[in-house]
Amino acid sequence: MNSDKVKKGLVIVYTGEGKGKTSAALGGVLRAFGHGFKIKVFHFIKKDSGSGEQKVLRQLGIEVETLGKGFTWNSENIEDDIRLARNGWTKAANDILSGDYDLIVLDELNYVLDYAFLDSEMIIETLRKKPQNLHVIITGRGAPDNLVEFADLVTEMKMVKHPYHSMGLKAQKGVEY
Amino acid sequence: MNSDKVKKGLVIVYTGEGKGKTSAALGGVLRAFGHGFKIKVFHFIKKDSGSGEQKVLRQLGIEVETLGKGFTWNSENIEDDIRLARNGWTKAANDILSGDYDLIVLDELNYVLDYAFLDSEMIIETLRKKPQNLHVIITGRGAPDNLVEFADLVTEMKMVKHPYHSMGLKAQKGVEY
Repeated sequence: MNSDKVKKGLVIVYTGEGKGKTSAALGGVLRAFGHGFKIKVFHFIKKDSGSGEQKVLRQLGIEVETLGKGFTWNSENIEDDIRLARNGWTKAANDILSGDYDLIVLDELNYVLDYAFLDSEMIIETLRKKPQNLHVIITGRGAPDNLVEFADLVTEMKMVKHPYHSMGLKAQKGVEY
Repeated sequence: MNSDKVKKGLVIVYTGEGKGKTSAALGGVLRAFGHGFKIKVFHFIKKDSGSGEQKVLRQLGIEVETLGKGFTWNSENIEDDIRLARNGWTKAANDILSGDYDLIVLDELNYVLDYAFLDSEMIIETLRKKPQNLHVIITGRGAPDNLVEFADLVTEMKMVKHPYHSMGLKAQKGVEY
């Protein structure tokens, strides 16, 4: 096994209905940060919200860019959602191709692809051209088949049990956001 | 909905064969840290290794305790493994019941339970007595049925695709450890 092969950056996809997709990406960020990786996190749906994760990522000096306006998919303004997603992708694609990063997280990108706000073939075309050592982590429900096919590592987070269902609880600060 | 109910600490289990269980727990830690939670992370199998995650957790001032000696389950010394697991659990149980923490991670505990190095009923008995607002995240393959039954939130990480299988790659620094 040669070192080029060992060092190849992976395209990792976390999908499925269960909790833990964004968390797993953030855990990957924490781990990579410990190794001195240069990291950028794009949130395709979230907006700047002072969430626990955004605070601590910035505190660590990790670049975070929020591209969305929250989970507002029954929005009356689909064109605005599409425009946001496309502008977001343009920024992400620039950073993916820049060679400036070791790890880029595309949080909730699957969601946007699933809604066809972006074309998954276009995303894959960019990923094909990414620097060899760059790792990319993509999260969100509904990862399209061609992205699953293209990725190196795919985990489906399967919901076995969720407290919103079993106990009627609201989202918990520090655990959910 | 009263505030006691909203603030109830959850018992979260990440299990299954897929990648992302420990990562999801670490992501939860990062998020909780951003909200100022007091956190402790126990690794039931890992030993101190200077891994990316251990480095950065300690850098953040988060308490990390490694209780294992690595993944050495075809060990010739099962009694030593059992002793380590039991000593580890004693420490973890003390911290769970102490009231000193908002989030405790029990990384790879399922693994140890699956090998019957610890009795899952005993673990559940302790979790029943935990402070109301304490969140506990338990990771590892093979979560026992009674723990799944007891937990508030359970996600199974299902392996869809893994590069060790599809490409014959070694574990990647910064992504896997």
